[in-house]
Amino acid sequence: MQSELSKRIALEISGMPVIDPHTHLQHKTPSAQFIGNIFSYHYIRMELSTVGMDVENLMSENIPPDIRMKNALPYIPKISNTTTWWGFMTICKALGFEDDTIHEGNFQDLCDIAKETMQSEGWYKKALHNVNIKRSFLTNLPDEDLSGCDRESFVPSLRTDEWVLDIQEKATREKLELLTNSSITNIFDLKCAIRKVADKFVSIKSASMAISLPPNFLVFPVANGDADILYSKVLIGRRLNDDELARLQSYMIYSLFEICNDLNLPFQIMLGVDRKIHRKLEWDGFSTDLNMVKTFRDALNRFPKVKFVFSILNSILNHELAIYSKTFANCYFAGHWWYTFYPALIKTAILERLQAVPYPKLIGWYSDSYYVEWTIAKIKLYIKSLSNALAELVEDGYINEDMALKVAKAMIHDNSIEIFSL
Amino acid sequence: MQSELSKRIALEISGMPVIDPHTHLQHKTPSAQFIGNIFSYHYIRMELSTVGMDVENLMSENIPPDIRMKNALPYIPKISNTTTWWGFMTICKALGFEDDTIHEGNFQDLCDIAKETMQSEGWYKKALHNVNIKRSFLTNLPDEDLSGCDRESFVPSLRTDEWVLDIQEKATREKLELLTNSSITNIFDLKCAIRKVADKFVSIKSASMAISLPPNFLVFPVANGDADILYSKVLIGRRLNDDELARLQSYMIYSLFEICNDLNLPFQIMLGVDRKIHRKLEWDGFSTDLNMVKTFRDALNRFPKVKFVFSILNSILNHELAIYSKTFANCYFAGHWWYTFYPALIKTAILERLQAVPYPKLIGWYSDSYYVEWTIAKIKLYIKSLSNALAELVEDGYINEDMALKVAKAMIHDNSIEIFSL
Amino acid sequence: MQSELSKRIALEISGMPVIDPHTHLQHKTPSAQFIGNIFSYHYIRMELSTVGMDVENLMSENIPPDIRMKNALPYIPKISNTTTWWGFMTICKALGFEDDTIHEGNFQDLCDIAKETMQSEGWYKKALHNVNIKRSFLTNLPDEDLSGCDRESFVPSLRTDEWVLDIQEKATREKLELLTNSSITNIFDLKCAIRKVADKFVSIKSASMAISLPPNFLVFPVANGDADILYSKVLIGRRLNDDELARLQSYMIYSLFEICNDLNLPFQIMLGVDRKIHRKLEWDGFSTDLNMVKTFRDALNRFPKVKFVFSILNSILNHELAIYSKTFANCYFAGHWWYTFYPALIKTAILERLQAVPYPKLIGWYSDSYYVEWTIAKIKLYIKSLSNALAELVEDGYINEDMALKVAKAMIHDNSIEIFSL
Repeated sequence: MQSELSKRIALEISGMPVIDPHTHLQHKTPSAQFIGNIFSYHYIRMELSTVGMDVENLMSENIPPDIRMKNALPYIPKISNTTTWWGFMTICKALGFEDDTIHEGNFQDLCDIAKETMQSEGWYKKALHNVNIKRSFLTNLPDEDLSGCDRESFVPSLRTDEWVLDIQEKATREKLELLTNSSITNIFDLKCAIRKVADKFVSIKSASMAISLPPNFLVFPVANGDADILYSKVLIGRRLNDDELARLQSYMIYSLFEICNDLNLPFQIMLGVDRKIHRKLEWDGFSTDLNMVKTFRDALNRFPKVKFVFSILNSILNHELAIYSKTFANCYFAGHWWYTFYPALIKTAILERLQAVPYPKLIGWYSDSYYVEWTIAKIKLYIKSLSNALAELVEDGYINEDMALKVAKAMIHDNSIEIFSL
Repeated sequence: MQSELSKRIALEISGMPVIDPHTHLQHKTPSAQFIGNIFSYHYIRMELSTVGMDVENLMSENIPPDIRMKNALPYIPKISNTTTWWGFMTICKALGFEDDTIHEGNFQDLCDIAKETMQSEGWYKKALHNVNIKRSFLTNLPDEDLSGCDRESFVPSLRTDEWVLDIQEKATREKLELLTNSSITNIFDLKCAIRKVADKFVSIKSASMAISLPPNFLVFPVANGDADILYSKVLIGRRLNDDELARLQSYMIYSLFEICNDLNLPFQIMLGVDRKIHRKLEWDGFSTDLNMVKTFRDALNRFPKVKFVFSILNSILNHELAIYSKTFANCYFAGHWWYTFYPALIKTAILERLQAVPYPKLIGWYSDSYYVEWTIAKIKLYIKSLSNALAELVEDGYINEDMALKVAKAMIHDNSIEIFSL
Repeated sequence: MQSELSKRIALEISGMPVIDPHTHLQHKTPSAQFIGNIFSYHYIRMELSTVGMDVENLMSENIPPDIRMKNALPYIPKISNTTTWWGFMTICKALGFEDDTIHEGNFQDLCDIAKETMQSEGWYKKALHNVNIKRSFLTNLPDEDLSGCDRESFVPSLRTDEWVLDIQEKATREKLELLTNSSITNIFDLKCAIRKVADKFVSIKSASMAISLPPNFLVFPVANGDADILYSKVLIGRRLNDDELARLQSYMIYSLFEICNDLNLPFQIMLGVDRKIHRKLEWDGFSTDLNMVKTFRDALNRFPKVKFVFSILNSILNHELAIYSKTFANCYFAGHWWYTFYPALIKTAILERLQAVPYPKLIGWYSDSYYVEWTIAKIKLYIKSLSNALAELVEDGYINEDMALKVAKAMIHDNSIEIFSL
């Protein structure tokens, strides 16, 4: 693989500006501060656990970050094949660590070097600058305080899961009432309150709404009258049955589509997570339901002005979602989410998308990271896969090298500027 | 990719004769005549639409073909990454156009050159001859007039969708009555009429029956008595419920299997289209139902003499269908249909098939094209993917180069001759 | 493909020790004895049948082995593209045959050479030794006689399908009663009897339990009281309905999990076979149910000490099962089962696993073979795919060559030693 052509393309792409349109960065603490915290990233934590480490020794608040690193040492050799481990070592090098392996003899050096770098003045800006990331989206809860946010680096995005998935929870309503200083006595009050929050996010230049949905989530039109009755039951504390809940949830997501339509807000929709499949450790997994893409047919037809920006957590439906992005002008395909963020899956997915879908419909990458350090690793990994895929298209004679670079720049930067009106 | 070996294999394959066992060519107008009509192909029309073009400016009858081309100009740069665009440029070159891009300054030249070539005497034969296509199958409705058809170039195939999917439509019956000069008063009359049409198609040397089925179509035996009652309801104008309709449709397809069995007609079955998912533009999509292959188990066992020639519109079930082709002597696997006709998917699919299935069971390619010009682009694209796949098998030591060429010739020519008794 | 690096890695791997943790070898007759019997392997028999051979001419007891070979001659050219055929020729060469093709003129030589080799003293040990296989697991029915078994070469494994899938068959109970010299009058007696057999297998150092499940098998907790009632019905000869049978079967597999937990026995679970889809020839196929992996969530959480070693018969869920192996410390992923044992599928699957899952959780290969001769072909094929996959990881810079070799050795040897406590 990595032919000369691929390396040349990778070098060019490494100099291009990047937008990161989905992260979980905390704008007040965008860096991990300690190498031990880098380990807490769920990708790698899961790998140490699966080879036998008691993650309490990694996660417990009582354990200082450097000791977490030390505790992990015996397990590191067992995870050294994964690309997540490659990402960890890539981070170490970016922080100034020069060894190729980590062991009893040098882990304290790593801790010290990492701490010095990550706690230095202006580190997070420098980290992002080094990989040309111009702006990173945040994931903001409705009541999140964004005062003091570095708005040059970070772009707000309103996360709306609770208004759909947790709509029958009392806490959802109470939080909205508090936030909007209103009283919610029926579903129309509820929608007004949500609209108020959305208006506020637009006023602070939020670039999108976002939501994460489970694999079996169904999206279909529900009449106002039906939703009104269902929400009345919620308000008097009655538990909805599965069918009722599905109807109310679908009504709510259609309400969000309407708001996106009114406010010209793109909707980032992430499909496929199964929450807490590991009961003790509360780790998430994924599975596939073959309706998860096609359930959006009605919405895609009904809201032609809303930009639906989909991501998907399985590899099986990459092809189908690519064809949807080709079919519907308002359907976009973004990134390689979570458990699909591995080079073989990324390269295959890129080829399937780029051969079938005009490139302005594709957002190539987002980091999904919790700390800027993982952002470094993840853009570097992506550039490898993207270069390999583009080189294959050039070598097979489908595009030339200039087009490859134009496509790359659009996928990591220009398209996000355009789609999210940045 | 495209190693020296792959290029050498491609060159050899480019000299081999080809049969195209599925097209939508109109025998009276097999050429597009104008470059603007090349654009009307749904693959590329969809791409221009998804990047913002109003397809009315491409499709409307009121717009002269050359103006369609002109209207598309601003959108062309946005679709230039796709392999469909590569196909378009491949066609332009085959028509005599020499530039590598199309723009305001040269589009009229393209229109003129294309028109001159496509409207020249004997063009469609020359076009097919240039890519060694010996015979192309048509897709003929039961009442289609084939008089004057160039039977050296074209082979009839009887398309039967309406007798299954539209069996409860009054128009289906009336058309059959008119065509067979008979009166249909029960399901046995209906079957007789269908048999008469099939006999006629056999008499004019139709090479196959063909049908396209949606992903959730179920195939199971239904008793004559049950079907009789169901069709009686249809005849008196009662609407069948979903379950009744499924039973009647399945009865009808079994009736077609019986006719194929009696008449020694292969049955080309195309699995997986979802019609009109884009409501406004009435464009088709696909989805996957995990029963769509295995539902044929009973039929494959029950009709060992009928050659079932399957195509499938998703990539997920390529493996399962390949194993069916290996398991059942009467099960064949054909081509890369529609949304699977992209190089990455084709190469993967070829490898999965060729490593597991004896090659006489495989028909490698068909164009599915509406104009002979697209046939040119699609055979050229396929040869690239086939050569890459075969080169990989040779390089990994599984077959030698002679076997690779033998397999290629069988997949694009010999097997169709054999299977369809041409 | 097969780059210099890949060839170098393949050469190194070819010198490494191998454990084969799943076979159907008969310990008394581990060799095929005649080349004609090599043909009876279902992979290749199916290929000859699908190109038109009457398999009676291959299988019938009345036909001497050499005549079976002769009967197959006309069909061999038609299957020479498949990797199974490559495997057959690889076996021929390992037996001392030197030609590259088989035909009328040399098939008797092949028969003679093959017979001489395979019937020579100590052949099966030599065959395994030549490909460095140290130990091969057997598949043992509960009542199988293992006296005289070469325990240096072979490791017992208790196959338990009948205690789950055939739990309502009278023969299942009667066999258990005979085997344990007990009387089974309720489900608790049944479990005691099964436990006795398991104890016996542990006493003779069986390394695992094993079971093969159909795609739609559901695994969920069932109360003792419910199971007691269901099994009472079985005991009085009442047929259970589908729902009742599913509950009883699930109760039984949970009972086996409990025994594995008590006895510290790994459980090898093979997912996805559809039995006898070819009715006349009684050949098996596969299909996919999207619940087939996730149905194990409860069991994986409930039995953290039981090592679940999964294999899967489709390619679609490779990714999901890989992520399960990463998520759950007690979930292992093994081999490339049956219809997934083709190079393109193997390489893709290896990359998906190795990029995401720490390598101690992966068992790379097992032969699933019925004769040691097929073991030779299948380890050689696997080493090609493994080397290609590892070379790609090295070339893309994710691991270095030393790590590649370490991973390879673990996947074909060390991990089995560890997981099965050999």
